[in-house]
Amino acid sequence: MELLKQYYAVIFTNTRTVGDNGYAEMAAAMETLARKQKGFIDFETARDQLGISVSYWDSLEAIANWKANLDHQVAQNKGMSDWYSWYKVRVCRVEREYEFNHRKSK
Amino acid sequence: MELLKQYYAVIFTNTRTVGDNGYAEMAAAMETLARKQKGFIDFETARDQLGISVSYWDSLEAIANWKANLDHQVAQNKGMSDWYSWYKVRVCRVEREYEFNHRKSK
Repeated sequence: MELLKQYYAVIFTNTRTVGDNGYAEMAAAMETLARKQKGFIDFETARDQLGISVSYWDSLEAIANWKANLDHQVAQNKGMSDWYSWYKVRVCRVEREYEFNHRKSK
Repeated sequence: MELLKQYYAVIFTNTRTVGDNGYAEMAAAMETLARKQKGFIDFETARDQLGISVSYWDSLEAIANWKANLDHQVAQNKGMSDWYSWYKVRVCRVEREYEFNHRKSK
């Protein structure tokens, strides 16, 4: 088994309020901005009734820096006032991982 | 800050193959079965282009037991042969969490 380089996942689970209210534009801008941050690794997102976005970072410091980013703080405040009826954030350390790729497995 | 009782998240990120092929029925059955397992805490799922499902467990042992569950193994095999073109599984330890509820915050 390969040794896993330590990294972290931030699981952001949420339910939206009704209507867009500028959400889609801000969400796209925040993803673009997150991808430019030091320590950013990857971002995955999906939504149907529930929204789940997971961002991956190489340290807890990188996560703290992103949370404190001024543009991101504006978005976080709009998130609470306008966009989300509920959310939960979980900061996690990835302990192990494995991957399946259908084409490679044949 | 409250002390967090240690628990774990399994992040299952995936892309589907084309067509249902019995997937929806099996996914529902597996969620029902997972919820009955010892150590199960919660399950969250969302899909648009990407599927992200996160299950939460109270120990690594509970996660290992669920992975080894015979009915779940049948589903895992069908997942590789029929349902998923790609997936990645990350087993994570939740280090901290916080929650927002719009109604409670007013």
